Amino acid sequence: MNGEHMAREIGEQPLVMERLLGARTAIAEVARAVRARNPRFVLFVARGSSDHAATYAKYLVETRLGLPAGLFSPSTVTLYDARIDLRDVLVIAVSQSGGSPDLVEPITRARASGAVTVAITNAPASPLARAAELSIDLDAGEEQAVAATKTYVAELLTLFLFVEALADRRGEAADDLPDRARRLLGREQEVELLATRYRFADPIVTTARGYAYTTALEAALKLSETSYVVAHAFSSADLLHGPLAMIDHGFPVIAIAPVGRAREAMRAVLERLDARGADRLVIGDATLGGLSFALDPVPEVVAPLLAILPLQQLAFHLARARGVDPDAPRGLEKVTRTW
Amino acid sequence: MNGEHMAREIGEQPLVMERLLGARTAIAEVARAVRARNPRFVLFVARGSSDHAATYAKYLVETRLGLPAGLFSPSTVTLYDARIDLRDVLVIAVSQSGGSPDLVEPITRARASGAVTVAITNAPASPLARAAELSIDLDAGEEQAVAATKTYVAELLTLFLFVEALADRRGEAADDLPDRARRLLGREQEVELLATRYRFADPIVTTARGYAYTTALEAALKLSETSYVVAHAFSSADLLHGPLAMIDHGFPVIAIAPVGRAREAMRAVLERLDARGADRLVIGDATLGGLSFALDPVPEVVAPLLAILPLQQLAFHLARARGVDPDAPRGLEKVTRTW
Repeated sequence: MNGEHMAREIGEQPLVMERLLGARTAIAEVARAVRARNPRFVLFVARGSSDHAATYAKYLVETRLGLPAGLFSPSTVTLYDARIDLRDVLVIAVSQSGGSPDLVEPITRARASGAVTVAITNAPASPLARAAELSIDLDAGEEQAVAATKTYVAELLTLFLFVEALADRRGEAADDLPDRARRLLGREQEVELLATRYRFADPIVTTARGYAYTTALEAALKLSETSYVVAHAFSSADLLHGPLAMIDHGFPVIAIAPVGRAREAMRAVLERLDARGADRLVIGDATLGGLSFALDPVPEVVAPLLAILPLQQLAFHLARARGVDPDAPRGLEKVTRTW
Repeated sequence: MNGEHMAREIGEQPLVMERLLGARTAIAEVARAVRARNPRFVLFVARGSSDHAATYAKYLVETRLGLPAGLFSPSTVTLYDARIDLRDVLVIAVSQSGGSPDLVEPITRARASGAVTVAITNAPASPLARAAELSIDLDAGEEQAVAATKTYVAELLTLFLFVEALADRRGEAADDLPDRARRLLGREQEVELLATRYRFADPIVTTARGYAYTTALEAALKLSETSYVVAHAFSSADLLHGPLAMIDHGFPVIAIAPVGRAREAMRAVLERLDARGADRLVIGDATLGGLSFALDPVPEVVAPLLAILPLQQLAFHLARARGVDPDAPRGLEKVTRTW
């Protein structure tokens, strides 16, 4: 069957979550070692889906830990040989494979220049995990599909538990995620119908604010890599700064708006989209009106761990509806080697 | 005439550059005040085109100043009320209008919590400039076109001179930019021919690495806001992590690859694009082969100030070729109010 790896790995996500919730002690130990060093600034190094997980974690660090945070551009080190003063900086590399040279080099340099370095990977023996001082294993089992699904969600949950542990909290909001994920994945038939509706939609825009922005980014990537749709994510604030002009009547927009503070900011954006006659689907709060796929309300901070699930399924079914094998995206390799 | 504001403002850019080069002393004074406070981290707050200028400046800070830097997400403050420890942090807000509330609020908070705050705007009496402790005037003259051109280039040059001043350097690499910009803008007929070629291209992908990545981002925004093309920028490293799958035979890709270190990294990406049969144009080093618009070699660090110019003209002429008024993008306002 086309896409069997991706289908299986999407289905494994509740179990992957359960395993990670059971690994809180190990995560808290790494957090304890980091706290002893009193970092004052946090940098993330990542690419692709892992970069979307890092975007989520950057919000967590700013809002729940109260530290300034940034996403590090590997090319400043790999291309321009930047020597950066990283004392008091926590550098977190996030990577499924732990194999990409453009992450290993920055983390090696960061460690040498005084940063506390943590690698979060699905390959505890990888070059990246060895290069970092501390590491956390995603323990998601081998990911065979080229499109990351279970490792992305494992990264989100690990980062959530890790940042909570850095703030000396347990992260209770995550406790019922496996059950909720299981129920949500059980609504696959609804998603399959949606995929039929989007059979000829191309391009597609995804949009969100706040924590959910990471879901918009990851959804666009899944759609473009598995079904070859030209999909572009915009922060809904950025959307109003220009790209809105390209949205015309019937343009497909998928808005991710779970219950929470970002939803309020999304109302105004949805009104602007409606005024332009966009075809918009809301993943989240169905009371926002129009076509929607309702998500049960959960604390906003953990909503990205659930909101992505139907979008992974949508990418999968859309690929199949378009006659494309979701497991074999043309032109892609599982470990991307960039310098 | 349709687009007269945008055409005039594109043409004013050499003069805007000359004015800023003459304002080095004022910029150096702000830099001196900042250096006295010994910042150890730098955060940028910006939206839209200004966010692309901030992306450029983030590279500058990392590579030329050796400090860690990040792009701050306004929504962590405006939506989630984040309280961030900003001691020893330099926070730089970049905004043409200085009027967007979602920048004023973070900069006000940052100042109150101990950060050194600098506003870089084209409106020295704006709420943003007043909210920040220090400010630099872009002095670009009023920008009437909705699509930012001269203020974007003014932001790039101001940020370059400011970061150089922070490192106690004069920034000689910028000295001949006005002359070079004038000659480059004089090649408008070549660009007009290119616009004809792209009359029916939609979507379009732009891509680059390193410093030039900001040009890819800004070019995609210009194309989407003036000619309504669905244009998407990818770091060429990220492009290989998934989105490459959506590039098929004849897919239009504009690669920005001026002479410099990033160009070397681009070779491999161009090969992958060629293998997929993409229709690719190189803006930069013509020796990379294929269709190209050659840029004179300049120090890579200032190349983004020139590389964007033909792309602004391309957005302008493409809009007109498509029967759209570049001065009146549908659905957009000059000052974007987002919260």
